[in-house]
Amino acid sequence: MGTTGPHSEFTTAAELVPASWKHRHLLGLENLDQEDITTLLQTAVTLKSATDGCHNKLDILKNLTIANMFFENSTRTRNSFSLAARRLGAETVEFSASSSSLSKGETLIDTAKTIEAMNVDAIVIRHSTPGSPHLLSNNVDCSILNAGDGPHEHPTQGMLDIMTIYEQRGTIAGLTVAMVGDIAYSRTARSNIWGLKKLGANVIVCGPSTLVSNAWEQYGVEVSHNLDDIIPRCDVLNLLRIQFERQYTRPFPSVREYAFLYGMNKERMAHAKENILILAPGPINRGVEVTPDVADGPHSVILNQVTNGIAVRMAALTLTTTANQRKPSNGGNEQ
Amino acid sequence: MGTTGPHSEFTTAAELVPASWKHRHLLGLENLDQEDITTLLQTAVTLKSATDGCHNKLDILKNLTIANMFFENSTRTRNSFSLAARRLGAETVEFSASSSSLSKGETLIDTAKTIEAMNVDAIVIRHSTPGSPHLLSNNVDCSILNAGDGPHEHPTQGMLDIMTIYEQRGTIAGLTVAMVGDIAYSRTARSNIWGLKKLGANVIVCGPSTLVSNAWEQYGVEVSHNLDDIIPRCDVLNLLRIQFERQYTRPFPSVREYAFLYGMNKERMAHAKENILILAPGPINRGVEVTPDVADGPHSVILNQVTNGIAVRMAALTLTTTANQRKPSNGGNEQ
Amino acid sequence: MGTTGPHSEFTTAAELVPASWKHRHLLGLENLDQEDITTLLQTAVTLKSATDGCHNKLDILKNLTIANMFFENSTRTRNSFSLAARRLGAETVEFSASSSSLSKGETLIDTAKTIEAMNVDAIVIRHSTPGSPHLLSNNVDCSILNAGDGPHEHPTQGMLDIMTIYEQRGTIAGLTVAMVGDIAYSRTARSNIWGLKKLGANVIVCGPSTLVSNAWEQYGVEVSHNLDDIIPRCDVLNLLRIQFERQYTRPFPSVREYAFLYGMNKERMAHAKENILILAPGPINRGVEVTPDVADGPHSVILNQVTNGIAVRMAALTLTTTANQRKPSNGGNEQ
Repeated sequence: MGTTGPHSEFTTAAELVPASWKHRHLLGLENLDQEDITTLLQTAVTLKSATDGCHNKLDILKNLTIANMFFENSTRTRNSFSLAARRLGAETVEFSASSSSLSKGETLIDTAKTIEAMNVDAIVIRHSTPGSPHLLSNNVDCSILNAGDGPHEHPTQGMLDIMTIYEQRGTIAGLTVAMVGDIAYSRTARSNIWGLKKLGANVIVCGPSTLVSNAWEQYGVEVSHNLDDIIPRCDVLNLLRIQFERQYTRPFPSVREYAFLYGMNKERMAHAKENILILAPGPINRGVEVTPDVADGPHSVILNQVTNGIAVRMAALTLTTTANQRKPSNGGNEQ
Repeated sequence: MGTTGPHSEFTTAAELVPASWKHRHLLGLENLDQEDITTLLQTAVTLKSATDGCHNKLDILKNLTIANMFFENSTRTRNSFSLAARRLGAETVEFSASSSSLSKGETLIDTAKTIEAMNVDAIVIRHSTPGSPHLLSNNVDCSILNAGDGPHEHPTQGMLDIMTIYEQRGTIAGLTVAMVGDIAYSRTARSNIWGLKKLGANVIVCGPSTLVSNAWEQYGVEVSHNLDDIIPRCDVLNLLRIQFERQYTRPFPSVREYAFLYGMNKERMAHAKENILILAPGPINRGVEVTPDVADGPHSVILNQVTNGIAVRMAALTLTTTANQRKPSNGGNEQ
Repeated sequence: MGTTGPHSEFTTAAELVPASWKHRHLLGLENLDQEDITTLLQTAVTLKSATDGCHNKLDILKNLTIANMFFENSTRTRNSFSLAARRLGAETVEFSASSSSLSKGETLIDTAKTIEAMNVDAIVIRHSTPGSPHLLSNNVDCSILNAGDGPHEHPTQGMLDIMTIYEQRGTIAGLTVAMVGDIAYSRTARSNIWGLKKLGANVIVCGPSTLVSNAWEQYGVEVSHNLDDIIPRCDVLNLLRIQFERQYTRPFPSVREYAFLYGMNKERMAHAKENILILAPGPINRGVEVTPDVADGPHSVILNQVTNGIAVRMAALTLTTTANQRKPSNGGNEQ
């Protein structure tokens, strides 16, 4: 953290992007190194400040067009990317699955190439198939940003969680962060784990064994099936929602039992550190993974996460499209 | 009318908004007083003029973002708000019910708070539940504008009707305005009644007793079940559409009978005042509440209403967001 | 071609539009003469260059609003029009069939008049009924642009095909262009034929007799049912997709047989001219009308077509709205 100072003065995207940043695409946090993640974080902090808290408009991406290509329902992430783009002066264009040419038999690559041929500079893609963004990144020249590929990665969600913790604590290294709940199906968990580990956090994944396999230990994280055991040690609890829409068999007897064992509530807060942070990627199921008094309480930074989502997406768009403009004319395959 | 002169010179929203306007939200016309309604009307007139008839762009809401949150189908009102916002330089963002997080179990308040956390300055909401905008206004800090809450209120529709009459006659006081048709289910009727009464009009509600109850008399309006009786006295006829999509039992034997008894046509026009104005909020059912010769005739101001819808929405967005920026930092609960 | 020089210097739309261009609407290529088509082509070339290849933004349509009114699914054409409008500085607004007032019983003309009353300067319409754009053009004052009316015309698609050929060859006159495949249901074929003939090309329509009737000869085109026969003579092959969604009975025994007889592939390329151009309006069915090696090969200009779509739509919007502003105040009925 802090290997280069924040870029507080800039009038172009190029001034904001260090030469060390080489990534034309943002496919996941697994393939970024610590310096990359730090750059992404610092750029987000700089852009949040320069836009008066992600509110006002800049024009550093003027003349750029960003396409949203969402093949799964999303309001929040899609609009967050769209607002991020427009607050930097870019145009946005929306492609949705239902009305798209894919229903006429077009391949995903052809759809993306067609969008690119409209002189789109970056495609933001959400798709149920893991690896879809990687596939596109090998077949188009514009930047590809992964907005969630099945249960695989959701790098901007991971980064906004990290940024929210960093804002509150000034560091990530040495903190103990627990991801609680539906780890098995969670791209958010995966992206958080890669990012947090690279910045030096201790990560715990916690939930019923049907959702949290011991196999996660191979990623260097601690596995727990008992929330009460780990609460006293945690600096951060990230309460993932139960993704009912993704599961084929119920992983626990009832929602009520899940809430009893893994829901965060007033009683459990009494055993937590005084300055514990409560995160939740939302949309939250009130009374399931978190009770209203905790979700709305002083330790909750849930709404900060939403605001920082715009900061992170402004940073990701700026970094990738700038790196793409800098790439040598022979292309090259570095992503 | 005319307690303050029109603000013909302005370069910022603040210059346009009198200190007397305190409303951070526009929830309905029932809770606005005469001065408020006059301010809304005059601001709409000023902005229409400043944009060359609601056509050209200003930048007085530059850096603002307006969210549309429509939980009922709408093309007209949604696009009217959107164009109003963009013609003042604001960004717009669309949330629709079908793809929203509400379908994942999120509460309406959480959805709104999440949108607000993206630094949205105003939320325009249409919802089938009366009171939804009020609920949100008590739970978020951004401005809330009611674009129709079930059969309750639709304040910008009421104001655009009033503005259209005012443009033609220069006053509202003393005019006799009849709302004809589906009063029972009409938020447009309610908003018109509150607004018109406060500006001194005489209001008649007219339709079959299944749609127009005598209970309306308690609001200080005249109730009639015979259109032919009242036509000679009317300065304005506002022909509400039969909202087939809202009703559970047919309130009249046939569409043909309704048109025979309450449809405005050439024969009835012969008994009307020479300068009678024909309004209809649309979409119109040609041959039901109005015949084509009347809808397209010289007395019709139906399309003026559409244009004025943009003027009124520009005014509402400007007034509420400016009042919101002026509010004391402790918030307060005045709406 | 080239009766007037390219307009390389301009700061307003008016400077770009020659006095000879009179069309307030773009309904089809059938009713344009050679000079009109040349103007449309040259304006597209000029705007492509002025926007650095259809990428950067101009502001020559600042203060204008363009409405998309698509009653058939489309991602490509709708977004292409939208990006064209916004890259010239116009605002865009979207009307879709499903959520529109048409479902409440409104007529198409009333819907269009309502949109126009929001001070929309041009309506881009796609509709399954041939003649819908003509109908609207006789009933509204804003410009109407046909984005496909059933199997009738799709003039911007025709022009973008022509522009793509012109870019590669510097002329259209004297070239032999074959449209292959689903001619019967193809508005693209019709618009291409009108445009290409007027610029002096020889046009062949080729496909099974169930899709390519001999009646086409009355339009001055050659009819062929054998692709191998005509390939050696062709400068351009435009490979239309089989529009499965439009047909009621299968016009050939199997997709495999169609591909065998009419699909463009490596073997057939061996018999083609060395500089043959391969066009396809897309979305392409890989392995049906064209094999991947041809679609992605050196003769393919399929993606150029997409980029030129934006150029042609920028030109069409500029020309029609400028002509509309110039029209005498008494209107007149010239389209």
